[in-house]
Amino acid sequence: MKIGIVGGTGDIGEGMAMRLSPYYDVIVGSREQDKAEATCTMGREQMTKRGKPCSMKGVTNQEAVDAADVIILAIPFKHAASTLATLHGFENKIVVSPVNPMEKTDHFIFVPPAEGSAALMIRRILPKDARLCTAFNTIAANKWKALDEELEYSVPVCGDDAEAKKIVMDIVNKVSRLKAFDAGPLAVSSMVESLTPLLLNIARYNKMRDVGIQFR
Amino acid sequence: MKIGIVGGTGDIGEGMAMRLSPYYDVIVGSREQDKAEATCTMGREQMTKRGKPCSMKGVTNQEAVDAADVIILAIPFKHAASTLATLHGFENKIVVSPVNPMEKTDHFIFVPPAEGSAALMIRRILPKDARLCTAFNTIAANKWKALDEELEYSVPVCGDDAEAKKIVMDIVNKVSRLKAFDAGPLAVSSMVESLTPLLLNIARYNKMRDVGIQFR
Repeated sequence: MKIGIVGGTGDIGEGMAMRLSPYYDVIVGSREQDKAEATCTMGREQMTKRGKPCSMKGVTNQEAVDAADVIILAIPFKHAASTLATLHGFENKIVVSPVNPMEKTDHFIFVPPAEGSAALMIRRILPKDARLCTAFNTIAANKWKALDEELEYSVPVCGDDAEAKKIVMDIVNKVSRLKAFDAGPLAVSSMVESLTPLLLNIARYNKMRDVGIQFR
Repeated sequence: MKIGIVGGTGDIGEGMAMRLSPYYDVIVGSREQDKAEATCTMGREQMTKRGKPCSMKGVTNQEAVDAADVIILAIPFKHAASTLATLHGFENKIVVSPVNPMEKTDHFIFVPPAEGSAALMIRRILPKDARLCTAFNTIAANKWKALDEELEYSVPVCGDDAEAKKIVMDIVNKVSRLKAFDAGPLAVSSMVESLTPLLLNIARYNKMRDVGIQFR
């Protein structure tokens, strides 16, 4: 299975690409192909050093969309709408949003768009038959990149297409010790997206780092 | 320290009263004093059977407010405003809201009042110098009552009064293996309250029961 990462050279995308590369053909997308290739060179080096298989290829964001079966939108909320406006070809593809709309003042706070959540906004922008799920919302960039650490976290997954959701949950369950949980339809994705500013506040006010979550 | 529980005979309040009774003088409030006394008789029996100390006293909700240093509002969101309208005497007292505004359709969803959260609504209703915190939002009624089970959960606590928040976090940390985390000011309490409908969905869609949360 080919997993394309739009924004694959960013903070989250880079670690995500490496963590997925032993199990899937990862197509790293970027606005600049050179940067995507550099991420792949670095990624292969990191994985090889650890004796792990690694399939990564660096291309443009559009080529990542075109080539992939599953597309992860590893972009900050503030660039989500504008990036999607430059891309096409999402028809019938599984699209994963780890996007969290939030702002920082004295603390972090969930600030959803008019649609109610980033996922619902993205659904409005994408073609009707794109198969959108949310996943990976609460995994910190530093944790993605800390390849020698296991990720012992729960990952809530929202989506309206049961088959797509199953495929996304299987992808989640491949990564380290992540455990996917069905969190319901996209209509309730705001409650998943608001976990991230909550966890950032927990880290801030309790002198912790890269706090994650477990359901139990 | 005297802890009053408004709604202390309800689903959540009853287990809460028992779990707190070895460490604090628990004043169980109810609309009907008879019911509060019955809860205390049952509670003392349960605790004595387990060889644990138990200080519980059954009174009316108003007497619980009057007698207590810390008042827990163990009432469903839909009755919060109307119950508070019948009570007075919260001046300078520490008030704890475990209240979650949510609705159930096919799934559970966070439906906050105009103020943005139940806590912010309650703050508007209470006198200005009441010292309001949120706590215990995500602990399921069944878990409170399962006295032979340890509660290994994280409890986010919001509040604008640092001293009151410290006292509430100490109370949280007394109960079983609960661990209190400072989650920031009341301004971000919506992100804590929305955890509960999220956890109810996680339980529902993954065939689990009484799901809780851990930060790690």
